[in-house]
Amino acid sequence: MKLTIRKDQLNDAIQQVSKASSSRPAIPILGGIKFDVTHQGVTLTASDTDISIQSFIPVEDGDQIIASIDKPGSVVLPAKFFVEIVKKLPSENVEIEVKDGHQTLVRSGSTDIQMVGLDPEEFPVLPTIDQSESISVPGDLIKSMIRQTVFAASTSEQTPILTGVLWNLQEDQFKFVATDRHRLASRTASVSTESGLRFSNVVIAGKTLAELSKLVPDDNTLVEIVVADNQVLFKIGHVLFFSRILDGTYPDTSKIIPQNFKTELVLHTKKLTDAIDRAYLMSREEKTNIVRLATQDDGMVEISSSSTELGRVTEQLEVKQFTGDPLRVAFNSKYMLDALKVIDSEYLFVGFNGPMSPIIIKPTDHPHSLHLILPYRTTG
Amino acid sequence: MKLTIRKDQLNDAIQQVSKASSSRPAIPILGGIKFDVTHQGVTLTASDTDISIQSFIPVEDGDQIIASIDKPGSVVLPAKFFVEIVKKLPSENVEIEVKDGHQTLVRSGSTDIQMVGLDPEEFPVLPTIDQSESISVPGDLIKSMIRQTVFAASTSEQTPILTGVLWNLQEDQFKFVATDRHRLASRTASVSTESGLRFSNVVIAGKTLAELSKLVPDDNTLVEIVVADNQVLFKIGHVLFFSRILDGTYPDTSKIIPQNFKTELVLHTKKLTDAIDRAYLMSREEKTNIVRLATQDDGMVEISSSSTELGRVTEQLEVKQFTGDPLRVAFNSKYMLDALKVIDSEYLFVGFNGPMSPIIIKPTDHPHSLHLILPYRTTG
Repeated sequence: MKLTIRKDQLNDAIQQVSKASSSRPAIPILGGIKFDVTHQGVTLTASDTDISIQSFIPVEDGDQIIASIDKPGSVVLPAKFFVEIVKKLPSENVEIEVKDGHQTLVRSGSTDIQMVGLDPEEFPVLPTIDQSESISVPGDLIKSMIRQTVFAASTSEQTPILTGVLWNLQEDQFKFVATDRHRLASRTASVSTESGLRFSNVVIAGKTLAELSKLVPDDNTLVEIVVADNQVLFKIGHVLFFSRILDGTYPDTSKIIPQNFKTELVLHTKKLTDAIDRAYLMSREEKTNIVRLATQDDGMVEISSSSTELGRVTEQLEVKQFTGDPLRVAFNSKYMLDALKVIDSEYLFVGFNGPMSPIIIKPTDHPHSLHLILPYRTTG
Repeated sequence: MKLTIRKDQLNDAIQQVSKASSSRPAIPILGGIKFDVTHQGVTLTASDTDISIQSFIPVEDGDQIIASIDKPGSVVLPAKFFVEIVKKLPSENVEIEVKDGHQTLVRSGSTDIQMVGLDPEEFPVLPTIDQSESISVPGDLIKSMIRQTVFAASTSEQTPILTGVLWNLQEDQFKFVATDRHRLASRTASVSTESGLRFSNVVIAGKTLAELSKLVPDDNTLVEIVVADNQVLFKIGHVLFFSRILDGTYPDTSKIIPQNFKTELVLHTKKLTDAIDRAYLMSREEKTNIVRLATQDDGMVEISSSSTELGRVTEQLEVKQFTGDPLRVAFNSKYMLDALKVIDSEYLFVGFNGPMSPIIIKPTDHPHSLHLILPYRTTG
């Protein structure tokens, strides 16, 4: 294997795939990036067995020559060192040549690097996926669906299935659900599928989706998604992102979401967020993060929190709409802030069924998002 | 005590002084900020006994009314919570009122905060310092003197005196020295003093100087420095910064700095830094950070490092000037990079007396900076 390649394009592709390489690999090969060089271009692959990322650099892009291939071939190079050194190389071009025993020479300007390469035959094989059925979702949409749900996934490995985000596709409605048993976030979007594609109980690790999100452009470039038996494949331009589907059955959460409410409020999203944020600062001192919300006779809402050592914060909040019973409820303000911060609408709806029942939060201008927070049982 | 004050100015002053409040105070009062309100303005003070910072907010600044004082008085409020809540208050103005038993009400727009205040009589008293003799140094100069030396101070509490930076003033030459026994950095500047002020063995903790640096403006605004028996006072506009002087005698380092060299090189600062930075990435894998420098027959310099697992980096570097004996030397590349990164000159001088003797690095365009690094004793 021997080639010369432009540093910037090589660096971009390495940054993309390196997210899948293990920082503490169980076996050295998993800490590597595989180079596959043909006369068409260079394919880079990294894999920690849970996720695999592949990026293709073509030899030409329009008028620009990106790589000149002297001899096709393959090698695996250590990711961590290579990621850092490539961007610091002194010349615009990098020459890579594999010698006997995978020994690799990297040259750029006055820099000469001999690297211990590994056998590409030992590198994990990417899953084979039937790509006949897929859905296409704009990049900015998939990013906001991830952002609006992933924070509610559990971080505890005690129930591994809850560390994931549940995906369902049915009648062109694509739905994400995440819950850690204390709160739940869901987001739905309409997508157009060929031949009425449907799937259910597809659960993808939250941290995998957070990594995926970084690779997806912030515009309406289409991301193609293929769901197979135990793998999902995302195609983002020249990048392929493979993720394992989590084993197990996701709990049915549809029954815990109330449809009718005894108390309904419409509030200004930013004003509510700011008020709870201030109350949170006080509640944090007590570790519990308990903040109270109470409707008042004058039609306002009072938000409050207290700490025996520090004192008490009390906020008066205007209400745009208030129907139903008076209410006092206590909740974890950190969970509430997490939900409020991903609601992009100016006003939001909050529904209650008394101090012991789930709190439901929804934007007022569309029905695609829903957040649920379980209240605290408190005295007084 | 009762007053109304503009949020932005209150926030700025709180951010300045809060750096001196303990995040884990031994007694609660040291985690507080003291407010002293008079008809002239508000004085905020924080102190962890090692350092104390005081900031004064006048009631008027030019045409602008900053504070309106209803009743003078004093109180101590918990710093950590107050620092975070003030910037998040909803109105441009903040009302603060102390009630019975130091209980304090803070109001801003629709926010009402009751805070548990503490007795100002229990707050540490600031040191009394004879301010008749002082030196004035431009802010940007004192910042660069700190930046160019403080990194070489020791971080180990085993020899507390070496965690500080040594200050000497003699014949209008103001000198900073820091060393951790493996490397040394020194910086001198000419200052004009009244009546030939001089001092020696004034040692100030490195982390204190790093905090001070953040409060000093990045321009030629004068910072006034008063050195007393066991305290140094810095006056920066409306801010007073007090620091304890470290106990003990700083070692005499003048004798370890060679004046003559067997090998002398002049190198391009940025090219040398980049080459060592690349070699550092490889050397880091071996934990030792060993990088080698060797003069070559063709008049170039070779920089290299190696790792048994990863391979070897070799850099060829042009030399602007080379006199004396051929040389091979090994050093800690992290220490070398720390020094190179604070040298602002285009070219630098490096002097050696063989592979076992201290390496000296100086900018070529002025004599005010000097860096010393002890080499590694290596075989081969």
